[in-house]
Amino acid sequence: GSKEGEAENDSTKINLEYGSKGFQMTTSDNKFQLNIRGRLQFRYTTPFEDDPVTFEDLNGPTKNSLNINRARLKIGGHAYKPWLKYYFEYDLWASRVLDFRIMVEKWPWLNFKIGQWKVEYSRERSVSSGKQQMLERSIINRPFTVDRQQGMTVYGHLDGGGLANFDYNLSMLTGSGRGGGENDDSKLMYVGRLQWNVLGDGVPISGSDLNHVKNPLASIAFAGATNTSPYTRFSSSGGGSLAGYGEGVLGQYSVDQWLFETAFQYKSFSWHSEYHQKQVQDNVNDMVTNLEGFFGQGGYILNHQAAKENNPLYEVAVRYSQYRPNKAITMNRKEEYALAVNCFFNGHKNKLTGDVTYFEFDNEIAAQESTGWRFRLQYDISF
Amino acid sequence: GSKEGEAENDSTKINLEYGSKGFQMTTSDNKFQLNIRGRLQFRYTTPFEDDPVTFEDLNGPTKNSLNINRARLKIGGHAYKPWLKYYFEYDLWASRVLDFRIMVEKWPWLNFKIGQWKVEYSRERSVSSGKQQMLERSIINRPFTVDRQQGMTVYGHLDGGGLANFDYNLSMLTGSGRGGGENDDSKLMYVGRLQWNVLGDGVPISGSDLNHVKNPLASIAFAGATNTSPYTRFSSSGGGSLAGYGEGVLGQYSVDQWLFETAFQYKSFSWHSEYHQKQVQDNVNDMVTNLEGFFGQGGYILNHQAAKENNPLYEVAVRYSQYRPNKAITMNRKEEYALAVNCFFNGHKNKLTGDVTYFEFDNEIAAQESTGWRFRLQYDISF
Amino acid sequence: GSKEGEAENDSTKINLEYGSKGFQMTTSDNKFQLNIRGRLQFRYTTPFEDDPVTFEDLNGPTKNSLNINRARLKIGGHAYKPWLKYYFEYDLWASRVLDFRIMVEKWPWLNFKIGQWKVEYSRERSVSSGKQQMLERSIINRPFTVDRQQGMTVYGHLDGGGLANFDYNLSMLTGSGRGGGENDDSKLMYVGRLQWNVLGDGVPISGSDLNHVKNPLASIAFAGATNTSPYTRFSSSGGGSLAGYGEGVLGQYSVDQWLFETAFQYKSFSWHSEYHQKQVQDNVNDMVTNLEGFFGQGGYILNHQAAKENNPLYEVAVRYSQYRPNKAITMNRKEEYALAVNCFFNGHKNKLTGDVTYFEFDNEIAAQESTGWRFRLQYDISF
Repeated sequence: GSKEGEAENDSTKINLEYGSKGFQMTTSDNKFQLNIRGRLQFRYTTPFEDDPVTFEDLNGPTKNSLNINRARLKIGGHAYKPWLKYYFEYDLWASRVLDFRIMVEKWPWLNFKIGQWKVEYSRERSVSSGKQQMLERSIINRPFTVDRQQGMTVYGHLDGGGLANFDYNLSMLTGSGRGGGENDDSKLMYVGRLQWNVLGDGVPISGSDLNHVKNPLASIAFAGATNTSPYTRFSSSGGGSLAGYGEGVLGQYSVDQWLFETAFQYKSFSWHSEYHQKQVQDNVNDMVTNLEGFFGQGGYILNHQAAKENNPLYEVAVRYSQYRPNKAITMNRKEEYALAVNCFFNGHKNKLTGDVTYFEFDNEIAAQESTGWRFRLQYDISF
Repeated sequence: GSKEGEAENDSTKINLEYGSKGFQMTTSDNKFQLNIRGRLQFRYTTPFEDDPVTFEDLNGPTKNSLNINRARLKIGGHAYKPWLKYYFEYDLWASRVLDFRIMVEKWPWLNFKIGQWKVEYSRERSVSSGKQQMLERSIINRPFTVDRQQGMTVYGHLDGGGLANFDYNLSMLTGSGRGGGENDDSKLMYVGRLQWNVLGDGVPISGSDLNHVKNPLASIAFAGATNTSPYTRFSSSGGGSLAGYGEGVLGQYSVDQWLFETAFQYKSFSWHSEYHQKQVQDNVNDMVTNLEGFFGQGGYILNHQAAKENNPLYEVAVRYSQYRPNKAITMNRKEEYALAVNCFFNGHKNKLTGDVTYFEFDNEIAAQESTGWRFRLQYDISF
Repeated sequence: GSKEGEAENDSTKINLEYGSKGFQMTTSDNKFQLNIRGRLQFRYTTPFEDDPVTFEDLNGPTKNSLNINRARLKIGGHAYKPWLKYYFEYDLWASRVLDFRIMVEKWPWLNFKIGQWKVEYSRERSVSSGKQQMLERSIINRPFTVDRQQGMTVYGHLDGGGLANFDYNLSMLTGSGRGGGENDDSKLMYVGRLQWNVLGDGVPISGSDLNHVKNPLASIAFAGATNTSPYTRFSSSGGGSLAGYGEGVLGQYSVDQWLFETAFQYKSFSWHSEYHQKQVQDNVNDMVTNLEGFFGQGGYILNHQAAKENNPLYEVAVRYSQYRPNKAITMNRKEEYALAVNCFFNGHKNKLTGDVTYFEFDNEIAAQESTGWRFRLQYDISF
């Protein structure tokens, strides 16, 4: 007969475990591994849901939202070789593929990745939405993130002993955002990042010091990105436009940007800051705009000794962010003051977070000034 | 290095079983459980597919449909505690999330649920489409169901011994239907349901008496719902409009509705009836309409003794439904007479159903009267 | 209480294996089986991505694409009986259901299938996109494939010993393409295929002779299809229109088509050819057009002995295709010359393919002539 002609007797026994990556199946020869995890995030918000972008957003009518904010299916593992890894993440709520990537991780110092994922640029964006210290990312994530892109990267960890401890990433991407596999012209997006792990050990890409680390961890990073595309910003929806920029034509916007970042963790305390600059050159209207933003945040676990009895951990954290959409205008800025309280039932995998944010928007030219409060409550569970 | 900083040696062995919830993985300490199931439903229909709503539907040209009617992926389980449960259901055919919910079920008499699901209102809607006695729900489901909503509920089972046996549900919801996480105004949807299990044991939320129960089971329920929204009906597509009602603006329709329901099972016989009333107040055009509907259905397993030898069970079931879209008009009603035959190969999980339905529509005002027949054949398999 | 009333103690232990169908769970009584697989395909293309259809496609501006071309989730198994099989395939990238089907395979010579799948018509289309010899299907697949349809089929393998070795398929379908469950009129699509396995063993529905078969395999097949619908072609997007045909109305196009096909494998060499004819009758404009196309392809594994040491296999393959969209016009044809090189790390399940294609388009009437080159690199991994 004309069946698909595959040997049917090539099966091997496999081991089944539950671990940090969820339910995990591994063949006894460790050639194949599949792990599967899910994550649900519920969020109540009042009086507005998204971070306000305009004055209208800040002063609109009150809306109460109770939403599933994230519903994720995560499938990862390796195939044929332990170092040939795959990862797939699906947004079940919006029915869209977030991550798909193949990683060749044979040597610590030289790895390759191909596919679509959150390009290694800012720590704030790279931290999973389920492992944040604050309830959500800051207001400067929207204008400065390069988000998910399609392409390839070379990366690795260089450990020369002592202070000589680095992580690097060099990426070549289509620069069209999530779902954008086609480059619109001959100009690709390039992103580079270098992280120096000052004290020999780097800070995990995860918020809060849940382990009460006894030796201080510190990381400093620089990153830069350059791209020409129709877009002035990127998000999980793909390429988009910042307020004040129209929908671009092919190759309309040349964007150059860089950041400086610090991170630190020690005995239940954790710190994270980022300073961003971004230049948008409009090649159609021959205009250049410079954007600037920064934030600093810190938190402290109040009862780290509760971890021994598997009791919930409590953390208080604060953040200040500032965003200037146009440096040429002195008083044109958006500020965010946030206070969050975390209750970690099982670390980041089962936690309740409440936060309150105070926004202050100024625009000298428009002679506008506005402030507003927002309250949120969020439950996040991974399984 | 700056990995995600999770302990990699925290894995536990897990047990794998196949049971009533499909393939199921449970850690040996029972802290985590994941079960996964699928369901496919195929349906052939002639001469029209959906329940007719208008006279045109009833008298249109003949169409033969062979369709996958439902393709569902169901993932459930518990995490961290046996009483902290999650459930996720995805409609693979329409690529949409149907259910996502977290349940805290620590005590039988006091449980909490948050997320999106079929709100406990009518038994007809709550019975899974794969566990129905008839081939599909009646014509009154469309106008009266509150369907899936986002929000939270408190529920439980109160067993005081003997006659004092109740199930209750109290829900607070955004009232915007499936996918609607945002309430459009300050008026939420509230739904309550109280079921009295008259003989001490309640009737399962599942059609047909497949177990030939020796002691009679009987339940009586009252339920009520109130909501203000742009919608006059709800379905798996989200909020929508009943025939004769335009697409609403925010807060246009205030809907109050209630039902009375009976259910009974005894020695292969089963019975289920519902009586519904619903008042729609159009706040824009200042109009009030009263809707009414009811149905009664009964069925009998012809050969219950076949269950012992794992042979197929056969059931004959009938239903009468009546819907009056406007009580102010005496002769404005839609009637449905249905006869169904079930062949249960493996209970509801693998069954073939055929039905024939006779529709009779009357509209005194329009001086219209019409009748029609429909035939359907359906195969439903869960695995 | 009124739970779903299912016995909770009906579970059986299950075996977990990794085999040719991925991770596989089977109950110890073999009544239930579930296997789950994934596949990712990455592709780099320049200067254009899709097969060119028009002269404009061939001469457009250069675009570099790095894309995930396919991301598939495949779930199959059996339920209740080993011969009651199900299969489900989801396109995660486009969020759409590709295959859903139930198969009754109790006897080799008489099987039944219901659902949606790639109807057995041409071998080129039936070979999975992950098991092709060339990087992608030929230019004649687009105009001649009947692709995925909804309906049912009777099929089997007839082995009378020696030369009397046949595979047959007879299908009755809605003829509305992927996602099209409703027939638009009373005229269904009918497809038949008969394959004669000349030497007693048929050629697998999979490209390349990876097993260096010692006894030659040969198959010859005839197939025919007839359909009346609004469509002149079908693809994974559903029904569509060929260049030059407008969007059809219900029943506008009556299409009759047939093919003759050969396939052969022997000692690392493999061959595959198809000759197609198709007649499109436009019932609205009363016009008849005849289309013709064919291709032949062959390949050879250069180092079959490497399979013993689990080393990669290398193959060189070539193809020539010709498509004539209207036989009435002598010089109106599209030609494709392709050369592909495969590197099979683990057979078709982990392979790298590069190809180069030369296109030659002629149109006497329009007095147009054009040629062009295309380069592609593709990585395909199943796990």
